[in-house]
Formats: sequence, C-alpha cells, structure tokens
Amino acid sequence: MDSPIQSYLRTLHTELAGLKDGKPFGGIPAMAGVDPDRFAICLATVDGYVYEVGDSGEEFTIQSISKPFTYGLALSDLGLEAVDRKVDVEPSGNAFNEISLAPGTGRPANAMINAGALTATSLIKGSGGKTGFRRIVEHYSAFAGRDLSVSERIYQSEARHGYRNRALAHLLRSFEIIEQEPDPVAEDYFRQCSVLVTCRDLSVMAATLANGGTNPLTGKQVLDLEVEERVLSVMATCGMYDDAGAWLSDVGMPAKSGVGGGLLAVLPGQLGLAVYSPPLNDHGSSVRGVEASRRISHDMGLHFVRAARTGRNAIRASYDIADAPSGIRRTDEAADVLRDNAHRARVIELNGDLLFAGTESMVREVSDLDESVELIILDMRRVDETAPVALDMLEQLRTSLAKAGRGLVLIDGEGALAQRFEEDGRALPSFATRTSAVEFAENQLIASYGDELCQPATVDVADSPALSPLAAEDAAALAALMEEHSYDDGDVIRRIRQRFGGVYFILSGSVVTTSPGPENSRVKLSTLSAGMTFGEMALGSADRQETTVRAHGTVRVKLLPAETISRLESENPRLAVELWKALTRDAYAHVDRYMRETAVRIRD
Amino acid sequence: MDSPIQSYLRTLHTELAGLKDGKPFGGIPAMAGVDPDRFAICLATVDGYVYEVGDSGEEFTIQSISKPFTYGLALSDLGLEAVDRKVDVEPSGNAFNEISLAPGTGRPANAMINAGALTATSLIKGSGGKTGFRRIVEHYSAFAGRDLSVSERIYQSEARHGYRNRALAHLLRSFEIIEQEPDPVAEDYFRQCSVLVTCRDLSVMAATLANGGTNPLTGKQVLDLEVEERVLSVMATCGMYDDAGAWLSDVGMPAKSGVGGGLLAVLPGQLGLAVYSPPLNDHGSSVRGVEASRRISHDMGLHFVRAARTGRNAIRASYDIADAPSGIRRTDEAADVLRDNAHRARVIELNGDLLFAGTESMVREVSDLDESVELIILDMRRVDETAPVALDMLEQLRTSLAKAGRGLVLIDGEGALAQRFEEDGRALPSFATRTSAVEFAENQLIASYGDELCQPATVDVADSPALSPLAAEDAAALAALMEEHSYDDGDVIRRIRQRFGGVYFILSGSVVTTSPGPENSRVKLSTLSAGMTFGEMALGSADRQETTVRAHGTVRVKLLPAETISRLESENPRLAVELWKALTRDAYAHVDRYMRETAVRIRD
Repeated sequence: MDSPIQSYLRTLHTELAGLKDGKPFGGIPAMAGVDPDRFAICLATVDGYVYEVGDSGEEFTIQSISKPFTYGLALSDLGLEAVDRKVDVEPSGNAFNEISLAPGTGRPANAMINAGALTATSLIKGSGGKTGFRRIVEHYSAFAGRDLSVSERIYQSEARHGYRNRALAHLLRSFEIIEQEPDPVAEDYFRQCSVLVTCRDLSVMAATLANGGTNPLTGKQVLDLEVEERVLSVMATCGMYDDAGAWLSDVGMPAKSGVGGGLLAVLPGQLGLAVYSPPLNDHGSSVRGVEASRRISHDMGLHFVRAARTGRNAIRASYDIADAPSGIRRTDEAADVLRDNAHRARVIELNGDLLFAGTESMVREVSDLDESVELIILDMRRVDETAPVALDMLEQLRTSLAKAGRGLVLIDGEGALAQRFEEDGRALPSFATRTSAVEFAENQLIASYGDELCQPATVDVADSPALSPLAAEDAAALAALMEEHSYDDGDVIRRIRQRFGGVYFILSGSVVTTSPGPENSRVKLSTLSAGMTFGEMALGSADRQETTVRAHGTVRVKLLPAETISRLESENPRLAVELWKALTRDAYAHVDRYMRETAVRIRD
Repeated sequence: MDSPIQSYLRTLHTELAGLKDGKPFGGIPAMAGVDPDRFAICLATVDGYVYEVGDSGEEFTIQSISKPFTYGLALSDLGLEAVDRKVDVEPSGNAFNEISLAPGTGRPANAMINAGALTATSLIKGSGGKTGFRRIVEHYSAFAGRDLSVSERIYQSEARHGYRNRALAHLLRSFEIIEQEPDPVAEDYFRQCSVLVTCRDLSVMAATLANGGTNPLTGKQVLDLEVEERVLSVMATCGMYDDAGAWLSDVGMPAKSGVGGGLLAVLPGQLGLAVYSPPLNDHGSSVRGVEASRRISHDMGLHFVRAARTGRNAIRASYDIADAPSGIRRTDEAADVLRDNAHRARVIELNGDLLFAGTESMVREVSDLDESVELIILDMRRVDETAPVALDMLEQLRTSLAKAGRGLVLIDGEGALAQRFEEDGRALPSFATRTSAVEFAENQLIASYGDELCQPATVDVADSPALSPLAAEDAAALAALMEEHSYDDGDVIRRIRQRFGGVYFILSGSVVTTSPGPENSRVKLSTLSAGMTFGEMALGSADRQETTVRAHGTVRVKLLPAETISRLESENPRLAVELWKALTRDAYAHVDRYMRETAVRIRD
C-alpha cells in the first residue's frame, strides 16, 4: 500500500512545482545553466529510511551547506575552545557574504557566514597522508554514507570569480585569524563548496545530525554528541543568515541552505529533511526549499517547541505489596509476618521516558515515601527512554536509601536497565516480573521480621500449596506414590514439547522455566522454588510441555508420574477426585494471579 | 527523605555563592542599594512542583524578563502578522539597549531589545474597563499564578533616568512604529520593568512557557501554542542579546535575563528554571544566573539537542494472529477456516511515543504489509504520547485500507485513544486486551471465509471447550445434571465475594466480567460468549468469586451446581474424576494463554 507519508510528500511536491518565484544563483557562470524546474524533497528517518520525491538522485553542488560539516570537523579536530578563539558563535544578523568581523580582533561572528567558514576550512590540517581537503570530503562522505566527489567545472568557475572570498581570506590573514597563506585556503573553500551531493544525500546528512552524530545507514559515529550539540545550536541561530529568526519561529528546526539550491533541516532525535530546487529568494535560500520546509513542519508538528515531548509524570501507580502479593503460599508464621509488614515494601509503576521530567517525578515519589517503607520496587517495564540523569538519580536514591537501611529493587522486563547498572559495577536486584520482585521483597521482609520457622529450605510434599486443600492422610497417600529425583545445576528436567509426564513437587532448590519467544528469542518465564509444582501446565496445551524446565543449583523433586495418576483413577477414584480438584484449584489460583498482574491500573 | 534534586540544587547554590564576579545594575539610583549576596535558584516542573533554594521569596524587579511576556500578549491580542509588521524576529547581535532599527522603516530587529519591547508595550490597548498596563500586569500575574504589583519607588527612578528609552520611544514614533504619544508608552514600559517578582514566580512563569502555555499551578491556559512557539523561538535566538549564540550553544534553552538580577530558562515540555542574583556580567545578565543555568543544563542533560527524545521505531513486534490465537475453542469448521486464513489478520505491537518518528515507523510498517492482510490490529497499550500527526496518519491509513476492503483495529487498554477517535466521529473497533481483539479478528475471518456452520449462536453443553476432553456419554451424563437459567441484559449472575456456586456453561448470548481495580477503579476483564464457562475461577481464590459477572444482552446458561458436584464425587467418582480432569485442563489452558499474552517479546 502507498504510504500516507509518501503520498503526502508527493502531493506537496506537485503543488509546490507551481511555485515559480526566485532565480537560480547567478554569481558563477558555471552554475547559471541549471534547470530551474529540478525539484526534489527527501525525508530521512533516524533509523535510516529515506522518503524520496522528484529529482532526488540529481547531483548539484553543496555550496554553503558544507559550512556546518567543516565546522564540525574543525571542532572535532581541535576542540571547542581552540575553535572558539578563531570563530565566534553569535548571529550576525547579516547576509551570508557580509564581512562581520569583530572590531579589533577580526574574529568572524560565526561559522555559517563566509568569513567564519573560510576560517573553519583553514583549521583542517592534513594527517595520515591525507590533505586537509581530502579529510573534508571524507567527512562529508561519512555523513552522506557514500563517497562524494567535487565538480571540477564548478570549482574552476568559483576559483576564477571568487574575488570577494579571496578578499575575505586575505583580510582574515591580516588579523591572523587565518594563519597560513590565504589563497590555498580560499581554494580549498571553493572546492568544498563544489562537492556534489543529491537531495537524498543531504537528507541522510541531516538525519545523521538528528541521530546524535551516527549515520543511520552505515551505523558509523561521525560526530560526538558535544560537537553535534554545538553545530546544531549554531545552525539554529545562524544557519539561515539574516532570515534565521524568522526561520526558527516559523519552521523551528536548525537548518542550512546553499546557493546551489539545496537546503537541509534537522529535528534532533527525529528526522532529517532536505529539499533541492535552484531558484533562490533574496536571502540566497531555495524558494521551494523554504516553502516545503515550512509546510512539512506545520503539517507534521516538527517545530522544536511543538515536537518537544510532554514531560509527563512518570508515575503510573504506587501501592504496597499487600495489594499485589506474589501469591506464593506461605507458612502460617510467614503469612503473619507479611500481614504485619507488607506496608514496608512498595511497588511504584513508572511509564514514559525518564528524561528530566520523568526522572524528577520518580525521584520526588521515592523521596516522599514514609521512612517505614524499606523496599522500593520500581516497575520499569513500561519505561521507554532512560537518560543518563535517570541513572545518576537512581544511584543517588540508592545511596541515600542504603544509609537508612532501605533498598531499591527493579522490575525490568527485558533486563536492559539492570544490565546498564551491572556494567557500571552498581548492580541492583532486578526481576523480570512483578510477581518475582514481590516474592523477593516478601522473602526479605520474612527474613527481617520473622524467624527460622518462616522460610523452610525444604518443603514436604504434603505441605506444598498445590496439595494443601487435601486431608493429611490423602496428601500422605499421594506422597507415598511419588518417586524422588535429584538434579544438578543446569540439568534439563522437562523439555519443551515433551508429553505430560506427571506433576513435579519441588522439595528443595529451585528451577527456571523458559520458553521460545517469537522470532527466535528465548524468554525466561519464572523461577520456582521449594513447595511449588511444575509439569502440570502441559495439561493446558494438548498434554505437551510448553516450557523447558532447568535446575537452578541442586534440586530435589518428587514426581507423581502420569501413569501413576491413571492407575489411581481406576484403583482409588475418590483419591483421584481429591487430586484433580486440588490441581484445578491450584490452576485457577495461577489464573487469578495472572489476571491481577495484567489488570489495567489507572492512577486517579 | 531529602530529594536528590533538592540536595543537588542546594550543593550548587552553596558552591556558586562563592562566585563574586560582576556588579549589580547601576543605571538607576533606586536599584543601586541591592544586597549583592541575595541568591536563589528555583526549578518548576510542568506538573507544578517547585524546587526552591536560597532567597526564593525575595522580591525584585522583573526588568527585561518582562519583554517576552508583553510580546506574547501583543501577539495574542493582534495576531502574528500585525505584530510582525511592527517588530521583526531577527537577532540583532547587539546589546539590549542598542537602537537596532531597520534602515528606512525603523522596524526594531526583535522584541527582546528595548526598541522592540517598547513597541510591543505600545500595542497593548486597554479593554473591558482596564488600561493597557493593567492588562499587562494581569497577564504576568496569570503566568506567575499570583497577583503581582509594581515597585513605585523603582518605577519613579526609572522614569526619571530613562532618557535613552524615552529617546527610543520618540524615534519609534517618528517612524510611526509607535502610533500614539511616545511618553506614556515609555512610562508604561518603565512600569512593566518595575513589576516585582520572586525567583519562585519566575520559575513558574518559565514552567508555564514549558507547559504549552498552561500555568501548571492554576491550570489556566495563558497563551496558545502558536504564540508560545513564537515567543520561545524569539527567546532562543534573541533572548540573551549579544550572548544569544553562546547561550544556545552552551545552555541550549530559550532564556531571558533582566538587569534586576533575574534570569529564566525554558526547556519545552519539561521545566522552567529561574535564578536570582544581582551582580551582572558585561552582557547585563546575572553572573551566577548564567553559571547556574550552564551547570544545571550540563548536569541534567537539558540542552535542546540532548534533551530531544530519541525518535525510535515504535514497532515492538509484528506477527500474524496464528502466533497469538484468542484461545477460544472453535468448531472444527471454524478452526479449518482460521488455519487457512489467520495470515489475513496481523497484530502490530507499538511502544514509545507517536510523535513524528514513531508515527512514521507505524505508517511504514502498515503500508508495507502484504495486501492479503485484511485486518491490522494495532496494539497501542504501550504507546505513551500520541501527537496530532499520529491521529491524522491513522485516519489516512484507515481510509486507504478501507478502499481496499481492509481494516484497522485498536488494542487500547485504557481506551483513551479510542475515545479521541470517537470524539472526532471516526470510531475504530477497539479492545482492552489482545485476546479480545484477536477474537474479534477471528470472528471476522470466520464470517468472511466460513459458512453458517462456523459460528453457532448456541453451543450445547457437551460441545463446550471445557467438556471437550470427555467421552460423549460422560458429557451427556453431566449435562443431564445441570439446571438451565436465563438472564436479561445487565442482570448480575455472580457477584464478587460470593462462594463457589458451581460451573456455568453459556448456551447463548454473552456475559461481561469486571473486578474492582486498586484505588476504587473498576476494571472490565473479559467478555465470554456461547460455549465458554464461568464460576469455576472461584476455586482459585479460596472458593470466593473474584469477579462480578453480568449478562450482556439476554443470556442462557446451564449450571452444574456445587452441591451436585459434591454429590457426584461420592455417587459416581469415576465421572467426577473426568469432570475435574477436564476442568484442570481448561484452567491450565487459561494459564497458558495468559503466559503467552504477558510473555516479553523482543524484536530482533
């Protein structure tokens, strides 16, 4: 099916093809012959998809759009401070070819006007057997994701007619802003302006800027974030010359245009936009380029103020674990301990992004908890993006809490956050599901507030939750029919797709169940420990095991084999009824737990 | 517990109190006596929480920070075009008190320099019995969330010494940029600069700008989004005068400072920051204000490039419904139809934000589907923010799909999105859970590709999925023990907390189950239809009904009462074993379905 975005761009392209204002650049004879009707719009996403309409593969010279890229290379080579001594970052409010040098020092106002751009070019030195200019072209190529070349014809014409830029280079040399011979600098600058790009190339270059400096097609990191912050900031205030203020007000994206008819705009984090159409307005920018950018920004909500994500409160729900118990059956002693102490552990469900606003709301919620809350379980499964400030603040919360003997626990479904903490050597207890995190918290509370009666390492079959509805003599009679087995760490006890083989009761140790996820992933489902059962789930899926069960450490189990159950049904139907009834109840206890876990929670 | 953000701000405040550079404003005698050690930092969130450190309640005059607010009022009063004819939006690159009028027209470069600010003030007319100046103060007060007043003493001193501003007003009058008598305009301007604010006020004013123009304390919409986009854009390029470029590069937030020592900065969507400290730098901005903003921006990642949310692909998983069947048992005919046609319905799980980038990835995924996919189920439960562009694109997708006889279905847990579509009169089928959406899709496919055999309106007890493992004569024997009941729409069949009363088999019609959510919400859990069972769930929760079951339309059921089951266990234990075994399998089929529904899916 035709994409609505593609068809939107096609409609816009058709409509703006009727806009005939402006004239192609006439300053260089070699550029005068361009076809004014050439027109392309490209939009590249930060994951590397490029929408293309019109003459998107047509090559033209990059001209002033080269400026932010050379500036970025200079900043990467020399650092911000060294470059700042040569070129300021202030809007000049002047046209691209104005002189705009600071009185006394001769420092150009910014790197988007010609004086600043010439200076930036002068700062790129050769290295590794490559000339400075070779490095410039390779830098642009890394942005575009393909090898770019120079139009020799246009370069020659620029070199022949570039009196004003040569004058600027000499003037800059007189102030010692440019420190080498000015003519070769001007020639490198003419060459950089003569690099051939397509509209598609420009959109990928813009998307690389939008994508934190990483080219979304090649995956290569071309600029680091600090430099890219600087480049986009200067583009925002100075990129459109004397039209910069109106541009930012109206279009709201850092941008750069060139007299070759190209224009690119960047919405950080989202997309790169490029337009090619040679006729220019009075500011030297493509008429259709400006209009297309304006229209796309309005229609798609791309203005930086509008595109800012609402920094919502990240707290989805907050409740103590008594509202969402693990559901694990406990001894009476343990149940008493939990009843009295469940308020000491609290689940806070977060969602959205942990950028500043989300992080702040999380920090505030945790800081405001009563000091009697000892364990704070942060359910991060619905959190989308986690900024560095969130990790810092979590670390500070953890430190402050630890001083008071309190602790943080994460529920982190896919484990990505827990992994980032582990890499930093500051692991936090983390679990894939709420049930397991709450189980952990309950165990902590029982360990702190109960005694050894509460947490037996070994659970007798007769005491297992599954058989608890049975009379003692019935449970004992079933136990007598079971076989005892022992497994070592990592042993597979049940394998996926095996036939129902009976019900396993864990006497001591624990097992882990996994299942294949879609598209070849493997999903850890649960950890089961002493007193719990497995194997019976196969009854719900045509008698086939749906999970693989592995020993986690040494495990002792008792097995009530499938054949024994069948025999029991004919030899002692009364006891068989009791067994099946108990298993039904246990199964529905599971269903109940899942329903509670998945129920929609809405905070008032 | 002390919040880490509060303690971060306190540490910063202590540290920067040692920074003694700069001098308080000396241009007006009444302002010369200020204590240079007064110092406050406030940070207000878009949900209205204010962090305050230092002298946050101390009043001082707003001075130039008034400019963006008066400009916003002028834009609201007259519209953008009318104001633009009087004041441009270009950075002047000059100091705040430079003249910067366009040659010929006299139009000030922007509303952040004095000439533009005087012009904006001249545009505010009285109305509703209020003077223009009264309206200005009320506008500022709406931003601050409290009634602000004027320092008469400072106003008098400004009025006596404001020769330069009076000159500017007369000059603007000579160009007819100001159309009334210039002296009263200058006096209103001196008065607006003399409005008293606290650092806390400024942070709330900034948070109102960050919050799309709605004051987070009062909930009042003070500016509309179009005007606020403009105001923040002009603050970004011109707010810090001749320091604007360096500020945006380094701090990366639209901002405004005043010679009274105040400074505010805005991160759209996230927060408002304000600092008060009278000693000024050469640009007329608070030394500590600039340094505190810089530090907070770096430490919290607030630069507009860095704070931009990564526009990730919103597609979490995509699979056809055969990979996630509803689990509802079908007739053999229906099962055949589904086996052959399940690929015609596809679930696409989305997450993150549907701003531009997320929307684009959704649109692309749907557009690229094979045309044989007729029903596209968008699982929106993990989607956080939905921008207008997402609704537009969903609408366009729906229209394009409908032309080809294809359709969209939403899974929208909390129903918010479905509601927005309904309000616009363009309702889409939407469901709270994946299971119910898939059931709907299955029914559609069966209706399209099957015949009347497939979807019986009435299901005999013996054919219910729960009893399907039984031999036909056993199922018939159980059916003979059941009582038939009929209910009307809305009748409560089982009420929460009732004791286990037996197993209900739905013969025709459907029922809805609900349960109380935390914090007094009510959660709709499921719709059950002919062939399905209820009541047995109570066995999993100490024999107490955990849900309320209501008739949805007229419903006929057969009930196998609890007492009948008990009697059966002693009179016909073999049949009782078969019943309980069947119920166990059915229960585990439920567990299996839940596990599949909640399993973590990770896309490769």
